[in-house]
Amino acid sequence: MSHVQSEDPIRNASKRWLNQRAVDALRYPVPGSWLQPMGDTWINLASGYPFPNTVPGREFAAAMSHLVDIEGDRPFQYAGSPTSNDLTEWVADRMRKSRLMRQEDALLMTQGSIQGLDLLCRVTLDSESVVITQGPTYMEALEIFHNYTSHVVALPCDRPDRDFNEMLTTYLTSRTDTHPIKLLYLGSSFQNPTGLVMSWEMRQAMVTLAMQYNFLIVEDGAYDALYFGTPIPPIKTLDTRGFVVYLGTLSKTIAPGLRVGWATGPSPLLDAMARWKKDLGNPVISGITRQYLHSINYDARLDLLREQYRDRAHLAHEALTHFMPPDVLWDAPLGGFYIWLRYPDRIESTDLLDKARSLGVSYVPGQYFYPFAAAPHTQKLRICFSYETPPRMEEGIRRLARAFEQTLGTPHL
Amino acid sequence: MSHVQSEDPIRNASKRWLNQRAVDALRYPVPGSWLQPMGDTWINLASGYPFPNTVPGREFAAAMSHLVDIEGDRPFQYAGSPTSNDLTEWVADRMRKSRLMRQEDALLMTQGSIQGLDLLCRVTLDSESVVITQGPTYMEALEIFHNYTSHVVALPCDRPDRDFNEMLTTYLTSRTDTHPIKLLYLGSSFQNPTGLVMSWEMRQAMVTLAMQYNFLIVEDGAYDALYFGTPIPPIKTLDTRGFVVYLGTLSKTIAPGLRVGWATGPSPLLDAMARWKKDLGNPVISGITRQYLHSINYDARLDLLREQYRDRAHLAHEALTHFMPPDVLWDAPLGGFYIWLRYPDRIESTDLLDKARSLGVSYVPGQYFYPFAAAPHTQKLRICFSYETPPRMEEGIRRLARAFEQTLGTPHL
Repeated sequence: MSHVQSEDPIRNASKRWLNQRAVDALRYPVPGSWLQPMGDTWINLASGYPFPNTVPGREFAAAMSHLVDIEGDRPFQYAGSPTSNDLTEWVADRMRKSRLMRQEDALLMTQGSIQGLDLLCRVTLDSESVVITQGPTYMEALEIFHNYTSHVVALPCDRPDRDFNEMLTTYLTSRTDTHPIKLLYLGSSFQNPTGLVMSWEMRQAMVTLAMQYNFLIVEDGAYDALYFGTPIPPIKTLDTRGFVVYLGTLSKTIAPGLRVGWATGPSPLLDAMARWKKDLGNPVISGITRQYLHSINYDARLDLLREQYRDRAHLAHEALTHFMPPDVLWDAPLGGFYIWLRYPDRIESTDLLDKARSLGVSYVPGQYFYPFAAAPHTQKLRICFSYETPPRMEEGIRRLARAFEQTLGTPHL
Repeated sequence: MSHVQSEDPIRNASKRWLNQRAVDALRYPVPGSWLQPMGDTWINLASGYPFPNTVPGREFAAAMSHLVDIEGDRPFQYAGSPTSNDLTEWVADRMRKSRLMRQEDALLMTQGSIQGLDLLCRVTLDSESVVITQGPTYMEALEIFHNYTSHVVALPCDRPDRDFNEMLTTYLTSRTDTHPIKLLYLGSSFQNPTGLVMSWEMRQAMVTLAMQYNFLIVEDGAYDALYFGTPIPPIKTLDTRGFVVYLGTLSKTIAPGLRVGWATGPSPLLDAMARWKKDLGNPVISGITRQYLHSINYDARLDLLREQYRDRAHLAHEALTHFMPPDVLWDAPLGGFYIWLRYPDRIESTDLLDKARSLGVSYVPGQYFYPFAAAPHTQKLRICFSYETPPRMEEGIRRLARAFEQTLGTPHL
């Protein structure tokens, strides 16, 4: 977006054309407002980006060249080429093999998994609908929910004393609100931003509650493949009755800039979503991506990624252990990209952020992972161990520790 | 979409989760149902595809390779690279120079121009809104409007006796319907499917009527650059008060499979649209496209394309003149990709389609360019002169002429 802001009559005239929902959505902060400006010298512990060395740029360039050799203009036309259209089959095959797609399910390819979430909201929500999320949860998902409804309920998932399962059961059995619950959005493995993993029992409980209270579970599987130990099957694999939609993506295992994602779930829902997907797909990218996948062993790639991110997670955990003041807490990551830090009340969040910035390190403040209405003054933050080189990551953690110490006023070392 | 249709309880359960608008949208035919199955031996006069030789596949592969050399992983990450982000500035610059973007306007990059139309509908329409279109009009646009409202009014734009201007004025002054008119969607130059061009006076009248009746004009400029004579400036250039949104695209001048489009118009509207664009853009494609544009002279490319399509249009017109029965009518194309054929009532549309298929030529039957509710039994069809090689196009037109003759029952030659 590039534009000139103005409060002139034209602006008012244009607003007149907006429908009620669009006007309501304007109450929320501008999308992406949680993005921090970054200098080139800053160490980026904020962005959930794959490690640059794992992004197969050259392989994609080679794949594109090869694709043009064998298919000419076809991937560049509306309907795509055999190769570009085969990406759907490649995904469907993997989904079926992982029991993430039942006989009765459909698959819809989307622009990143986030578009799948938007389309699902499009066909299920209205302004009276309740959406339940984990608190904290993925900020882009929150921006989407805020577009459709103001009834976004975030139930704590990072409390040491009560687990999400218990919070959810209490909420469902004791709520007095009569608005219909439509969706429960969650990450079951290495959730963004906490990195938490739901137990097998908790996953079973989610499906049982969904059937009992008749809501749909939206399981965001973005980090599922990036486990460091033994993975637990996604909630979707437990669903026999069509109460779960699963969102998948190549963003974390190949590259986010491709915008290759998908949704699997009950055909009637996915059919309805497909009607609202009005962008005519992405034939060129689908073609290059499928061609690239022909040239590699994707499972071997995943093994390698797991190894690399496991090492990086270990390094981050070690650095945190070494540098952080004793009252900053976190869990050793079991997979994914993130570590969620909790710190004491006496540290002022905005002071910490200012200090970190002045020391040249970025992170995402915890408040952005909660619904706007909740606007909690959280003593939490997310760091990402996926993007920076190991030495820079270590230095970033050292700087962040120094920011904590200077904000606490009690030097640690 | 790949799925198993079933009418079991799961299907019904899933439908229960759909909101009212999603259920309403299910009444309309499945998107893309106007696409005809095609054998490889068929001559394709149906698809609005650029001529394969003009699609710069190799140049794009080279651009991608170069992009990776200079920017590494950056175009593959969420935020994109300097090159990928500069595509917006390249478009903005062209829009400003063509007076398609005022000081008070914003620019939003979209997945093809069609996503811009969808987003505009998203923020302006509700189920009571009236959308006015030309009749016939672009079928994908109709599918979008049907998603949002059942009040889609198509006013004839191809009547020999009364022009669209007159039809619109009559409609506006005499309507008894009290639903609010929100949008007038139109192509002013080489409209899909008729190829018609609005006069300068008619364009001025559109803006005057929009201001008088307080609706927004959505001008689809997909074919604007592909003029064969002297172009008339788009309606958007006449708009000083923010009553026009202009949709642009590289689909016809580079390749549709890229999905590079944009919308320009009043900032408040475009800001609202940006909030609902939940796919995080398209950094890889934007990067390759901008890199490709660095390597060519785009204006020289447009000159070349105009020359090529002018020749093809001329050839199509000659072939039609030579082969068609005398009561099949059309206008010589002034630009764009299409010719709109009108034929007499005594030819049954479905018979003609069957006959054309059996002779191995495809076109798009006229009915698909009208709102579903209207479902007219049109004696019209669209052929496309952009895609097939000249000899195959000529042969396709010969086959179509034969289909007419055999359906008429009176051989022409």
